[in-house]
Amino acid sequence: MEISPFLNKELPESLYMQLYHWIRKEIEDGRLMPGTKMPSIRELTANLNVSRNTVETAYQQLQAEGYLESIPKSGVWVAEIEKPVWHLPPTEHPIIPEKQASPKVAVDFEYGNVDLDKFPIKQWKKCLTDAIDQQNNWLFQYGNKIGEFSLRKEIAHYLQQSRGVRATPEQILITAGTQTSISVLCRLLSLNGETVAMEEPGYLGVRTVFKDEGCHLKPIPLEHDGLSVKHLQTSMAKAIYVTPSHQFPYGMVLPVAKRIQLLKWAYQTNGYIFEDDYDGEFRYRGQPIPSLKSLDEEGRVIYLGTLSKCFLPTARLSYMVLPPSLMELLLQKFAEYNQSVSPIIQRAVAQFMKSGEFEKHIRRMRKWYQRKHQVLLTSIQQYMDTRVSIIGEKSGLHILLKLNGMTASKLIERGLSHGVKVYSPARFWLLPNDEIESIIMLGFGGLSLEEIEQGIRILASCLPKDLEKKGGPPLR
Amino acid sequence: MEISPFLNKELPESLYMQLYHWIRKEIEDGRLMPGTKMPSIRELTANLNVSRNTVETAYQQLQAEGYLESIPKSGVWVAEIEKPVWHLPPTEHPIIPEKQASPKVAVDFEYGNVDLDKFPIKQWKKCLTDAIDQQNNWLFQYGNKIGEFSLRKEIAHYLQQSRGVRATPEQILITAGTQTSISVLCRLLSLNGETVAMEEPGYLGVRTVFKDEGCHLKPIPLEHDGLSVKHLQTSMAKAIYVTPSHQFPYGMVLPVAKRIQLLKWAYQTNGYIFEDDYDGEFRYRGQPIPSLKSLDEEGRVIYLGTLSKCFLPTARLSYMVLPPSLMELLLQKFAEYNQSVSPIIQRAVAQFMKSGEFEKHIRRMRKWYQRKHQVLLTSIQQYMDTRVSIIGEKSGLHILLKLNGMTASKLIERGLSHGVKVYSPARFWLLPNDEIESIIMLGFGGLSLEEIEQGIRILASCLPKDLEKKGGPPLR
Repeated sequence: MEISPFLNKELPESLYMQLYHWIRKEIEDGRLMPGTKMPSIRELTANLNVSRNTVETAYQQLQAEGYLESIPKSGVWVAEIEKPVWHLPPTEHPIIPEKQASPKVAVDFEYGNVDLDKFPIKQWKKCLTDAIDQQNNWLFQYGNKIGEFSLRKEIAHYLQQSRGVRATPEQILITAGTQTSISVLCRLLSLNGETVAMEEPGYLGVRTVFKDEGCHLKPIPLEHDGLSVKHLQTSMAKAIYVTPSHQFPYGMVLPVAKRIQLLKWAYQTNGYIFEDDYDGEFRYRGQPIPSLKSLDEEGRVIYLGTLSKCFLPTARLSYMVLPPSLMELLLQKFAEYNQSVSPIIQRAVAQFMKSGEFEKHIRRMRKWYQRKHQVLLTSIQQYMDTRVSIIGEKSGLHILLKLNGMTASKLIERGLSHGVKVYSPARFWLLPNDEIESIIMLGFGGLSLEEIEQGIRILASCLPKDLEKKGGPPLR
Repeated sequence: MEISPFLNKELPESLYMQLYHWIRKEIEDGRLMPGTKMPSIRELTANLNVSRNTVETAYQQLQAEGYLESIPKSGVWVAEIEKPVWHLPPTEHPIIPEKQASPKVAVDFEYGNVDLDKFPIKQWKKCLTDAIDQQNNWLFQYGNKIGEFSLRKEIAHYLQQSRGVRATPEQILITAGTQTSISVLCRLLSLNGETVAMEEPGYLGVRTVFKDEGCHLKPIPLEHDGLSVKHLQTSMAKAIYVTPSHQFPYGMVLPVAKRIQLLKWAYQTNGYIFEDDYDGEFRYRGQPIPSLKSLDEEGRVIYLGTLSKCFLPTARLSYMVLPPSLMELLLQKFAEYNQSVSPIIQRAVAQFMKSGEFEKHIRRMRKWYQRKHQVLLTSIQQYMDTRVSIIGEKSGLHILLKLNGMTASKLIERGLSHGVKVYSPARFWLLPNDEIESIIMLGFGGLSLEEIEQGIRILASCLPKDLEKKGGPPLR
């Protein structure tokens, strides 16, 4: 069989690639049929007047991909291929536009964002590059499965100092977020098919993970001072997820008496308490509340922390403190899993903590958020007075507002048409509840003082006229 | 009730913290009983001769934590607390030593490490700091759920150019590793309780995920040219995980005829093919083999890629290309999940790709790994000759050696006592198999040319004396 590809030395594509593509297309289009004997390398080299290397390389590639077959002492043949199915599909349409057009928003009270003005960018950049300059081959390896030792050491120190948690670095697992932590716990404790309790309302991101892990969710109602332990005691739950330092989203602190009841429940039922201390650092009156974990004597509390609120959401870095026995189980069960947080980020954060920048940053941010928080409360009092009441005003990066004489959805709609975006916390409830209809959520972490004041002023203008201004008791 | 704390202005601890700690301890130790009325703020201020603020702040903190209770028009009371359970537990013993003592290893043929000598550290550091300097508030937000757009755009471009995969950025999901990708796929396609096929042997890290996600695993035997599609056809599998560009760990390339059979299987059974192209970049003879995905016309192939092999394991960055319909389903099912890869890393990698450094790096590494690979093969021929045969020698960062006249475990033991660490690939088999006993795996990505040569020389001295040297046919 003779073949006559047209090869052109003037083209940017190398001769062997031209030859490769030509033969491949001949086979794909059915002009070179399976079972056809190809010219030998020597023949084709001579025919085409190219180097032997050109033909050899093209043939090798076609053999490697299965288009040609070399049979020793017989020659090179077109391989047996069923009806080809190639030719690239037409470009598929993008399914979701990257950015949706939305009304212009001047002030966005979205929860979860943090402040950038006071962030020590320069120091953080230095930590990143310093981390990469560290000796040894760590950069080219997969990293410690439970997290870099240097970071776990710094976190252990920090937790002891500021949250009253006593833990060795060996008890700490680094994860890529609280959702990952919860997923790991569900598997570790085999919670699939078991009942897990949560505060009602509670953090949706975690509830979703419990559901996806096959847990039955038991919502536990809140009382004025947090979780109703009575309801928990009759729940048959194997574990409970709680936010004792700052209930999410209501904002109350679980008092010590209830903490002890909660621990007793765990001790008596062999239950586990997942304590999510997501923003325990940001308390504006007095000292931060010590963690529930610091009271735990029997290793029933698993402490969950995150750097998203007190440092950077983009670090995607959370952690857990596990009792030694559970850490041992984890190392067995997850022996084949790699750590999923980049050791580059881990080491840079360790550096940042070790240098003292982290604690300085938290102190600075606590003061700064306190000012924002103050402006938020003052603005609400000034512009909204008795038309709203504030829920959970002592700490954290958000508050709830209970509206008087207007539904949340109406205010959200009106606010948006005036350039102010506020949110309903409805999705944090598992069960329907009449109260939800009149509550909105305001996150202020990422807003400036001016934006907060302006946003509240505009939002107040969207509320019904204040009929009670001249008299009547305040709502709370 | 009068109380007499001892406060000392000379101590570094502030007066209010001293007061707080003193009262708290009195309550914890049972000297201040529940129901006791506390002195009023005014009284205590006068008694202690401190500022009103000191007492007020201490009381507030104790109230916030639930030790005290303020009852309007009545006063401040010690709160009702059940038998306290505090006092920190004794420091728990570390469960695992961080580093285990092991014999001194001079050359470690561990699979998975990559080379550091040629890595453009300087450019990568610049990309990291440049990423942080980018405008906008992204650093302080949670980031796009499916991954930063800039990175998905660069990956789409790269895949089109180098792997023949045509995908829009909207079809790409960034994940923290191939294990995460597989876990997402299991949930997305509801594979819990379903049969999933894998090559036998195959990648253990992925098999573990399938098991943990509740899949029934069906091992599909390999033939000399890869996966036995015949066996797949009778397997009742809903999906198959394959490594067509470079079978892991055997190293063969799936020829085009089998690729088409594989696609036909998927089209006819509505099955899915998870194509893991973990090191398709590193092929040392001819061009890289185009991906299986590039032949897929009906959206049944899900392409899995990683930056661990061709860039940095410490980036912890993998990705998937999903058909549009599956991406739509994913956005619904995982609406409440956050992206788990740090946007800092994502943007830095995007920058690195955009600048052209990434392609340059891959070209450079391909050449460099090729030299190592060559030294490895030459050393094996020179020192081990017919006592071993090589499996999978055309690409990738590892090879297998089949031993003649010695078991793998014996060689591993002897090697270790001579300072050379080699590994058994036995764990990559699901089912027991006699062949495994005589195979070892050599990863060479992270070794220098000298180490490779030295390691093989030492290893050869651990093999039985070469009785066949003077004659006899080679094993393969």
